[in-house]
Amino acid sequence: MALINENFLKLKAGYLFPEIGRRVSAFLEAEPEKGKQLIRCGIGDVTEPLPSAAREAMKLAVDELGDRESFRGYGPEQGYEFLRKAIVENSYAGLGIGADEVFVSDGSKCDTGNILDIFGNGVKVAITDPVYPVYVDTNVMAGNTGEADESGRFDGLVYLPCTAENNFEPALPEEEVDLIYLCYPNNPTGTVATREQLERWVAYAKENDAVILYDAAYEAYVQGNDVPKSIYEIEGAKDCAIEFRSFSKNGGFTGVRCAFVVIPKSLTGATASGERIPLHGLWGRRHSTKFNGVSYPVQRAAEALYSVEGKMQIGKLVKHYMGNAALLREACEEIGLAVYGGEHSPYVWVACPEGIDSWGMFDKMLHEAQVVITPGSGFGAAGEGYFRISAFNSRDNVEEVCRRLKDQLG
Amino acid sequence: MALINENFLKLKAGYLFPEIGRRVSAFLEAEPEKGKQLIRCGIGDVTEPLPSAAREAMKLAVDELGDRESFRGYGPEQGYEFLRKAIVENSYAGLGIGADEVFVSDGSKCDTGNILDIFGNGVKVAITDPVYPVYVDTNVMAGNTGEADESGRFDGLVYLPCTAENNFEPALPEEEVDLIYLCYPNNPTGTVATREQLERWVAYAKENDAVILYDAAYEAYVQGNDVPKSIYEIEGAKDCAIEFRSFSKNGGFTGVRCAFVVIPKSLTGATASGERIPLHGLWGRRHSTKFNGVSYPVQRAAEALYSVEGKMQIGKLVKHYMGNAALLREACEEIGLAVYGGEHSPYVWVACPEGIDSWGMFDKMLHEAQVVITPGSGFGAAGEGYFRISAFNSRDNVEEVCRRLKDQLG
Repeated sequence: MALINENFLKLKAGYLFPEIGRRVSAFLEAEPEKGKQLIRCGIGDVTEPLPSAAREAMKLAVDELGDRESFRGYGPEQGYEFLRKAIVENSYAGLGIGADEVFVSDGSKCDTGNILDIFGNGVKVAITDPVYPVYVDTNVMAGNTGEADESGRFDGLVYLPCTAENNFEPALPEEEVDLIYLCYPNNPTGTVATREQLERWVAYAKENDAVILYDAAYEAYVQGNDVPKSIYEIEGAKDCAIEFRSFSKNGGFTGVRCAFVVIPKSLTGATASGERIPLHGLWGRRHSTKFNGVSYPVQRAAEALYSVEGKMQIGKLVKHYMGNAALLREACEEIGLAVYGGEHSPYVWVACPEGIDSWGMFDKMLHEAQVVITPGSGFGAAGEGYFRISAFNSRDNVEEVCRRLKDQLG
Repeated sequence: MALINENFLKLKAGYLFPEIGRRVSAFLEAEPEKGKQLIRCGIGDVTEPLPSAAREAMKLAVDELGDRESFRGYGPEQGYEFLRKAIVENSYAGLGIGADEVFVSDGSKCDTGNILDIFGNGVKVAITDPVYPVYVDTNVMAGNTGEADESGRFDGLVYLPCTAENNFEPALPEEEVDLIYLCYPNNPTGTVATREQLERWVAYAKENDAVILYDAAYEAYVQGNDVPKSIYEIEGAKDCAIEFRSFSKNGGFTGVRCAFVVIPKSLTGATASGERIPLHGLWGRRHSTKFNGVSYPVQRAAEALYSVEGKMQIGKLVKHYMGNAALLREACEEIGLAVYGGEHSPYVWVACPEGIDSWGMFDKMLHEAQVVITPGSGFGAAGEGYFRISAFNSRDNVEEVCRRLKDQLG
């Protein structure tokens, strides 16, 4: 009898965004006229054209595949060296990361989910709350949790609340944990961690023999040099942290698909008997057994993001989205809402007006202003009472959203 | 303490192809002059240019991404409907498979590995032997096996030997199993299953409440209409089989990356308490939580393989590689070797000459003929005494390999 993985049955109904999709569809069907005005600031998906540097590189690579002499079939599972080199030279200059410590993949969602393959069953996991739902759901699937309670919190996970009360700085876990998911600039709150905060995390991880899973998908949005862009800017992090990055949010690759993981060779986990095993080798084995490399034209497109033109074009995209974020912050503040994030991040995190909860605010914005936002509670119990506005949009749309915020909620 | 998944430590040294790579590198270093003559017929990687239909579609899609109006970010995790529709209309016409039963992915290696996520720990797994190593290794990683013995066979797996003695037809398992991996046309033996053989498997699966994992990555190489191309040609298969397909070997997509899984909605697994759970929903949840869809231009390229031009171009590629296979078969037969496969498959499976084992034959071919083949034992204990020649090559190279076979081994 083919038994199923019953951990799947513990998952709560639907991933957040499908639920949003269902509510939006129902609204569009019920109110087709109002529906025409709909502006989506929900899912964190980019909207601006793919940089021409990436497009040109991709098309050249496609041409290469059309010629027997330059045709390429299976590439190295870990990614072509041209891309891994570009990554370390540009994104990790001076941080001592080697090109062979980079594993190119087709997305951070895959990587942050699949990474659990190399850890033992039943590792103790800490997540910040609110949090990117994939961290939670993949741990549920892997059997690292019990059942969920009414608020949606899973037994066995260690939740570290991040709210206005603690200035969105998660406390160190009170009990010993094995894995810690950190995401900075944070999705969904848009907040960042200071160097001192990250130093505390690295110290905690080293003291407790824990591994930090550091999701830096939004690093391109960090303004200035005071806020760390990589966990490896912190002394000692190479002994306790894996970093995830993506080209989705800087190069607009959400539909193109390219990301990477950095696993320093010095990073180890333990067997039950205490033997130290480098995680790099385990992931290398996982990656080459269950993955066959990223599409060659896509890897060339990612490489091109590191060219002079590519960097300039990324700079323009980031500036555009950050300009949107500033407008959204301003509009929310103007109508008296408490606003967080949006300064080093394309996400603006807003406290709901008195007496309205997150999904209430979602419905209100949808029905009264025809704006799709993301309810904070969808990211975790501690997100209740907040909502997220994504700055990924055209300037026109964002200006219109700001007008509606002021008109409908002001 | 971050405990690792100790199942990884049971894996045997290196996946087959890295080991081949190491031996070839050592040879090239030791014998640089001879090395210049090297012809690779080892790994099953295509060599001919990507069909122009796919290239043109891909470049058009890249252009679309360059315009705000036609830009696409995240697509549906399951794949765009345009591609899923083209798949069912062309590859499953008349078989009653719905577009919503297709999940587009970036490769069959990923799919055949990841599918284990939805099954319970410790399912009993049957594999044919020799076999594509990924089936074995991913089961080891998932904890579905014990340790390996000296021949490389893992405790807990049910091996079904396929050798010349049983005409490469695996016997039905003597003990009850939960999952059965079948691959036809077979990698590595190049043999196929008749309709009657598949009917026996479907009957076995239904009787034993087992699930067949049917890998049809090479279906394009089936000649004529007598040999089934899909497991769903067999009555009842929709209640007991998942099918994996890929564009790697028909459209030359090994470097482009696109594949798909078919999971009929009628197919269920069981909970320990006997509740029936549709596997379609479980995989849908897994796919949307741990995967973010295939690159949009790649999906357009895959769609284009189903156009009139695309089909014609695939036909030419298949004809080319099958012409190679015929030449290789002929050359091996001419020098007195027993030859199998290569008639509905790009793989020719050859019995080693008396007194030479698989790796001995690998070394002999490398050193004496400068031809890279794949040792049969690398695919499993029952592959010992055989080697695989891949027909994926240019006609010139194949003709040269045939000459060397006759000169060096004749």
